[in-house]
Amino acid sequence: MSAAVLTPSPLRSFDRDTNKRSARRSVSASRLGRASHADPDEMEEPVSGGIASANEEQPSAGAHPIAVRKQREREANLSRFNHWRSATKVPKPQDDHAGEFRDVSELPLARLTVQERGIVESDATALVDQLAKGALTAVEVTTAFAKAAVAAQDVTNCLTEVFIEEGLKRAQELDDHYRATGRVVGPLHGLPVSIKDHILLKGHDTSTGYTGWAYNTVAEKDATVVRILREAGAVFYVKTANPQTLLSLETNNNIYGTTYNPFNRDLAPGGSSGGESALIACHGSPMGVGTDIGGSIRIPAAWCGLYGLKGSVGRLPHAGLLGSHDGMDNIIGCVGPLARSARDLDLFCRVMSQADPWLMEHQVFEMPWRNPSEITLPRKLCIAVLWDDGVVAPHPPITQALRDAKAALEESGHEVIDWEPLDHWGHWELISKLYLLDGGAEYRQTLRDGNEHAVPQTEWILGHAKDREAYTIQETWQLNLEREKFRSRVLEHWNATAARTSSGRPVDAILCPVAPTLAPPHTTVRWWGYSSYWNLCDYPGVVFPVGKLGLRGGNLGLEEPHDPRNDIESFVQSQWDPHTYANAPISLQLVGRRLNEEKLLAMLHVLEQSLGRVEHKDDTSV
Amino acid sequence: MSAAVLTPSPLRSFDRDTNKRSARRSVSASRLGRASHADPDEMEEPVSGGIASANEEQPSAGAHPIAVRKQREREANLSRFNHWRSATKVPKPQDDHAGEFRDVSELPLARLTVQERGIVESDATALVDQLAKGALTAVEVTTAFAKAAVAAQDVTNCLTEVFIEEGLKRAQELDDHYRATGRVVGPLHGLPVSIKDHILLKGHDTSTGYTGWAYNTVAEKDATVVRILREAGAVFYVKTANPQTLLSLETNNNIYGTTYNPFNRDLAPGGSSGGESALIACHGSPMGVGTDIGGSIRIPAAWCGLYGLKGSVGRLPHAGLLGSHDGMDNIIGCVGPLARSARDLDLFCRVMSQADPWLMEHQVFEMPWRNPSEITLPRKLCIAVLWDDGVVAPHPPITQALRDAKAALEESGHEVIDWEPLDHWGHWELISKLYLLDGGAEYRQTLRDGNEHAVPQTEWILGHAKDREAYTIQETWQLNLEREKFRSRVLEHWNATAARTSSGRPVDAILCPVAPTLAPPHTTVRWWGYSSYWNLCDYPGVVFPVGKLGLRGGNLGLEEPHDPRNDIESFVQSQWDPHTYANAPISLQLVGRRLNEEKLLAMLHVLEQSLGRVEHKDDTSV
Repeated sequence: MSAAVLTPSPLRSFDRDTNKRSARRSVSASRLGRASHADPDEMEEPVSGGIASANEEQPSAGAHPIAVRKQREREANLSRFNHWRSATKVPKPQDDHAGEFRDVSELPLARLTVQERGIVESDATALVDQLAKGALTAVEVTTAFAKAAVAAQDVTNCLTEVFIEEGLKRAQELDDHYRATGRVVGPLHGLPVSIKDHILLKGHDTSTGYTGWAYNTVAEKDATVVRILREAGAVFYVKTANPQTLLSLETNNNIYGTTYNPFNRDLAPGGSSGGESALIACHGSPMGVGTDIGGSIRIPAAWCGLYGLKGSVGRLPHAGLLGSHDGMDNIIGCVGPLARSARDLDLFCRVMSQADPWLMEHQVFEMPWRNPSEITLPRKLCIAVLWDDGVVAPHPPITQALRDAKAALEESGHEVIDWEPLDHWGHWELISKLYLLDGGAEYRQTLRDGNEHAVPQTEWILGHAKDREAYTIQETWQLNLEREKFRSRVLEHWNATAARTSSGRPVDAILCPVAPTLAPPHTTVRWWGYSSYWNLCDYPGVVFPVGKLGLRGGNLGLEEPHDPRNDIESFVQSQWDPHTYANAPISLQLVGRRLNEEKLLAMLHVLEQSLGRVEHKDDTSV
Repeated sequence: MSAAVLTPSPLRSFDRDTNKRSARRSVSASRLGRASHADPDEMEEPVSGGIASANEEQPSAGAHPIAVRKQREREANLSRFNHWRSATKVPKPQDDHAGEFRDVSELPLARLTVQERGIVESDATALVDQLAKGALTAVEVTTAFAKAAVAAQDVTNCLTEVFIEEGLKRAQELDDHYRATGRVVGPLHGLPVSIKDHILLKGHDTSTGYTGWAYNTVAEKDATVVRILREAGAVFYVKTANPQTLLSLETNNNIYGTTYNPFNRDLAPGGSSGGESALIACHGSPMGVGTDIGGSIRIPAAWCGLYGLKGSVGRLPHAGLLGSHDGMDNIIGCVGPLARSARDLDLFCRVMSQADPWLMEHQVFEMPWRNPSEITLPRKLCIAVLWDDGVVAPHPPITQALRDAKAALEESGHEVIDWEPLDHWGHWELISKLYLLDGGAEYRQTLRDGNEHAVPQTEWILGHAKDREAYTIQETWQLNLEREKFRSRVLEHWNATAARTSSGRPVDAILCPVAPTLAPPHTTVRWWGYSSYWNLCDYPGVVFPVGKLGLRGGNLGLEEPHDPRNDIESFVQSQWDPHTYANAPISLQLVGRRLNEEKLLAMLHVLEQSLGRVEHKDDTSV
């Protein structure tokens, strides 16, 4: 790496005026009558160098003493690599010419060499292949992604803990090992992997978006997933932002502020694994580890044009995460990968399985991962399309993407039928109770302990338990029964599709939106029903990109919307304006039967072939 | 079947003197200071024809109005088959010559023809083979087992619902089908299967040992396990007794009274699936369905000399059971088989799996059952023996059986090391909290609603939550964490055995007692630690018979016992007297890794080969 001249962070000037609140956010918030801000009791001067306060729409996160300290430390770690930071000065979103910089996704590549661009544009599968052949070194690969990661942080605010030297040191060790032995240490030898903040990574803090946890949660050991990745040869160099409470499909907390969507900074990158999605979309990581209890892998992957897999509970290791409600297992989240190709999702799961995680962690089922290419699929798949969940219809580009996919599948000889939505509103009433069994008490206590206010999305979700006490255990047993009854209904509903297919078999998968909108303006997420439904069912869901709004022609938005069926749909309908979502990725979701992750990925492969998306070649483009 | 002369039930005279309470029970109860009786508010005259009051040691169960009605109905159903009932008059246990009738296990065969004896002495695997070949008819097989079942009821009080005509009708339909088509309807075509009372069986009551549930719980549909059995061709003809609350390792309730061990009526048949074990041991059923959350399949199977399998949670279908604490999933029970051979356990699981139960019931994992004979085992197994759990040492015959098994394994070239017990007392402190999260409130309410008193074993288990309120949900989350921590510790403990084996692999299985005693005198069970430990771990456990006390020579009981380590061990030590346990079956337990049920059965096969137990031939002895 070259000893380049230190460049001041282009975002250093963005830390003023932090107490402004835009009319727009207030409007959005007041529409559903929930978003509001507690006033933190203790505020310091905003910190220099952070991006958290760059967007006027965000609360004054930078002012919390913990935020000051954490952002200062992050900046110190980044400043050692100022020569990697973007030379382009990115204006504030509301400034003149800001529109020219809504899409910042390519800026992180500016300092990369041609070779490095080749590296960061490759998927993980190609990279580990090249690393294993000795065609690339771990230091080369780590350097390329770290360079992009530093710049990605500057334009999207996606990172929390930054420890690039540690990553480079590990990469050097791996290279030394390879040179000495001619062998890789494992299937991910030399691959940089980014880790969501709330996942334990030995020696690093696990603030998890809570000011009260920062500096109190330095991990003494790795989470199981991290341990397996580490033993497989992965290189760790950054942790990534997650929102306060984790129970949010956006990414905003009082330590680091808001994370931005690199394709349009006016839009959310998704959450809760939004640091991951922003980073990977900026080529700052080839593969990241997220978690999903209501969409937190799939939503950010979709809104940033990536691949993301939420498996069934118990399929992948899950021990070693920090989060609220530890020990609550009425509804359980999943660890899973975000990546740039479908085959990388398979790679991640295969590596997990090969480590015999069931010998490390009681909860993991001993179900060895099968190679999706070895899965025998029916020659003629039957896919059901969920067009509209009956609560909030998706925006036009999503419906169009479903139509395109249906046509492509049929052209390829597959069958497509409609999926009749089954009680998506009921699912939400139930799962939102399961999320907040204690009435939100533990969340609120954690905020009080950390002397911080609730960010808008926290207020919104906690509003679902407004004025409700914690359930008694008898009530939670009743809710468990309702959950099991719901799962039974959906299972029977799926089985019943056999009556409507030409084969007489139930459908193989469900194709559906990931959310009713593309990546939306910040703090405006109001409906989880296309993602959290599958958490309640515990079905695996994979999301995949099909395009970008800016690249599509046609008559989007010309259809007359129906009368809104409820306040949420009314709000979401009113959001639709193609200009709002300029350049936003368009993605879809494929949902499979419980514990059929391999079959799901095999079907995604067939679907992508039908869509004409070129499968990744077996060797890298480097 | 012949129209034999009606014979009065030999037990009809046993229904007097129901309010006596023996000194012995009171002593047992007072030793641990827990067992006592509430006085039911409403009592009727004891019913004629029931056995519930035959044993002076038992509470006056027969006097509850529901007991009167239920026993009268059962007697009416049985009396249609009086010609099948035992002609031998069995005296009360405390009467003169009672000792000659402690072992009643062969009496139910008295009315059977030679051919019928051949049938009921065959295992299920042999029977379904013969049925499929047309060598036996379903009516023949059902008649043989029903005859023995009627007599078994008379001598052990093992049945609840009796519907033999329904079974014979179904058997006839199956025979008609076979004659018409030359084909079986499924892999269990014509096999009688008995069902534990709390498992839903369409059209029949599901009293579950609660007076308040009787007549209010007639099943509108089958439990999943029953549905699969039915579709596989099984014939249902009886349901079997379970204890009040189900949370007991004995079998006693206020509807039907106490169930007796057919090998020694002074002893408990085990519980909670004790109706099953008594019935199958009497040849009244070739295969029964039980449930196990603390030993409730394994204990009765062991104490009646049978095979029983408790799998891992999620491996076999579990929907459609009645029981208290519905919706509680902090600790979960399992459905499983009791049978007369190891291969019948495999048959049961295979039939379950072949029905794709994961398409019927969300909770079942899609892990198709593998044929144990196809499991590749290490040539040299390594088995760890748990000799003493550190809380309550097993009685001498059990230790001797472990020694014999160790010697046999080593002679066959396998390795045997010691299993170091890991915190069995801690396991009990934790699991007894999980059993009683609500402080026992729901159990007590159900008893109040049914206007019945707690039987001794109910008082004993509820004593564990004495004066404790229901936990808050935050407290239950903490208990869940303790549970997961416990599971992690045991997993690591198992993995760590690799350091002590010659192969460097962890041990393949754990060989251990099923309980510290053989089938004990009624109402004296005080330690679950050898069975419930594996429920807390969620490891599969299979029990198998190795002999009977009366048949063994040697120096049993000559060893000087150590100083008791606690009150429970003191009590159990004081129980040891070979005469008390005369004729009691001796059984052991083999425990495998989670979700490795097939490997466990494959290892049991190897162990039984080592022990010289002749494997069942592929054809029946009929």
